[in-house]
Amino acid sequence: LSQFITSNLAILSPGLLGGSIAFAARRYLGANLSLRVWSRGDAALVKVRDSGVADVATTNLREVITGADLVILAMPVPYMKEMVQALLPHLSAGSLVTDVGSVKGPVVATLGPLCADAGRVFVGSHPMAGDDKAGFEAARGDLFDGKTCILTPTSDSPADDVDRLRCFWRSLSCRVLCMDADEHDRKVARISHLPHAVAAAVSLAALADDPSAGDCVGQGFRDSTRVAQGPADMWADILLENRAEVLASLTDATARLQELLAFVQGADKEGLRQFLAHAAQLRASLPGLPL
Amino acid sequence: LSQFITSNLAILSPGLLGGSIAFAARRYLGANLSLRVWSRGDAALVKVRDSGVADVATTNLREVITGADLVILAMPVPYMKEMVQALLPHLSAGSLVTDVGSVKGPVVATLGPLCADAGRVFVGSHPMAGDDKAGFEAARGDLFDGKTCILTPTSDSPADDVDRLRCFWRSLSCRVLCMDADEHDRKVARISHLPHAVAAAVSLAALADDPSAGDCVGQGFRDSTRVAQGPADMWADILLENRAEVLASLTDATARLQELLAFVQGADKEGLRQFLAHAAQLRASLPGLPL
Repeated sequence: LSQFITSNLAILSPGLLGGSIAFAARRYLGANLSLRVWSRGDAALVKVRDSGVADVATTNLREVITGADLVILAMPVPYMKEMVQALLPHLSAGSLVTDVGSVKGPVVATLGPLCADAGRVFVGSHPMAGDDKAGFEAARGDLFDGKTCILTPTSDSPADDVDRLRCFWRSLSCRVLCMDADEHDRKVARISHLPHAVAAAVSLAALADDPSAGDCVGQGFRDSTRVAQGPADMWADILLENRAEVLASLTDATARLQELLAFVQGADKEGLRQFLAHAAQLRASLPGLPL
Repeated sequence: LSQFITSNLAILSPGLLGGSIAFAARRYLGANLSLRVWSRGDAALVKVRDSGVADVATTNLREVITGADLVILAMPVPYMKEMVQALLPHLSAGSLVTDVGSVKGPVVATLGPLCADAGRVFVGSHPMAGDDKAGFEAARGDLFDGKTCILTPTSDSPADDVDRLRCFWRSLSCRVLCMDADEHDRKVARISHLPHAVAAAVSLAALADDPSAGDCVGQGFRDSTRVAQGPADMWADILLENRAEVLASLTDATARLQELLAFVQGADKEGLRQFLAHAAQLRASLPGLPL
């Protein structure tokens, strides 16, 4: 079993997710864990050092990668390929590379072969956890408690590596699901990217012409639009990286809205009631919160 | 000042809102408050009696109305007119009638003249508080804590009555805003009815074809679709009662979604980023939570 315990962890880019993994790993994997953090800039490293969470926090990639059993890419997806190219020369045999990106198809298709060609293994991860705040300042050790983490192994992924990654996320208190990258991207488009896009559209439709309406809001509006506060740059990347599935889900949502609009237009109370009842039944059927 | 203190309260229909007003009034207005509750059926009255919140809980309307300084209509909007016709003969001079309906234009236009013709006063109220659960079982005394309550007086509303009603909601820990019924309906369409309708459309687009996607959901999906669990009957009524404003807001939201869809379709990252940044800025500019 000890082969499944991560004892030497490298985290690249200590933002909200990378930083939260650091705090959670320190909390749950104990003081014996060796934890090294790389960042491209010194500003973030100062905060990491001040927090005391890492054994090493440096811009020296080799120093962070050498000897790590698990390397986690926590930067935005567009930077990952270049990062893996830079780290592969320092990566020991038996080391595993994963990421925390919100889109898995292009990541797995790019990083999988890149690592395989160097005799190393990449398996994708997507912890379904976040915050509308970004950066290491917002990182916290309980961010993953009870959250779902989706792994996207391929038929080429060694079973031991998948088990090791599963153990790692479970040790951070996640519930782990495995599916292929395409299924991940299709489902996550619908349950994460779509609600984000729609929350932005609703915020604009509700407030752009008359922001004074914001003075009346109740908890319903706050909850339904909370995710629209997320960082615009990052979300523009995500929606474009998962473009085909996001388009399909936005098209479906637009069709549903037009169906609803027709019921209201035609004062079709029974049609409207059935539409709302079906939605309420689906929403109420979500699995209970894991914790 | 004592003329502004409600000491004899009648609540008609002890559902989520009526019941919560009862608990909050008992909590905040003290043991000297005389609190009487009417319901059309005995089932709800048994629960009210078991809770001990009311001095009287009965199906006898006259017994509840006689001597009340403030009568609160807490049934669905479609039943209000008939209710007011039935209660007016028992209503003392100086008594004030209000409601808690989510739509104010038709309510004020109907109940205002009905009460005025009988020499009594109606002023509309809309506490922006709720729950996805319905019924007296879900009622609680802190439902209104720090929430906004919108009053919709007309130019005919006596200032003393408006002040009395404002004092009442403030005593229940609400923040009170006044605006005319049309402004209320326009704003509330955008910040309450629209998010509800959209949450239903998103729930259907996300889960109807493949409910297994629900197994992956994170907090973002839960929050953005929470309101879609509300009672379908009640929400079908609300959307149709505020039909013109709901149609306008749904049309705007559909146009925003199509704008977003075009940015994704055209891989226009800068357009998408600006769209999301504008939404994030509007959402982040909401006033802080009052409590």
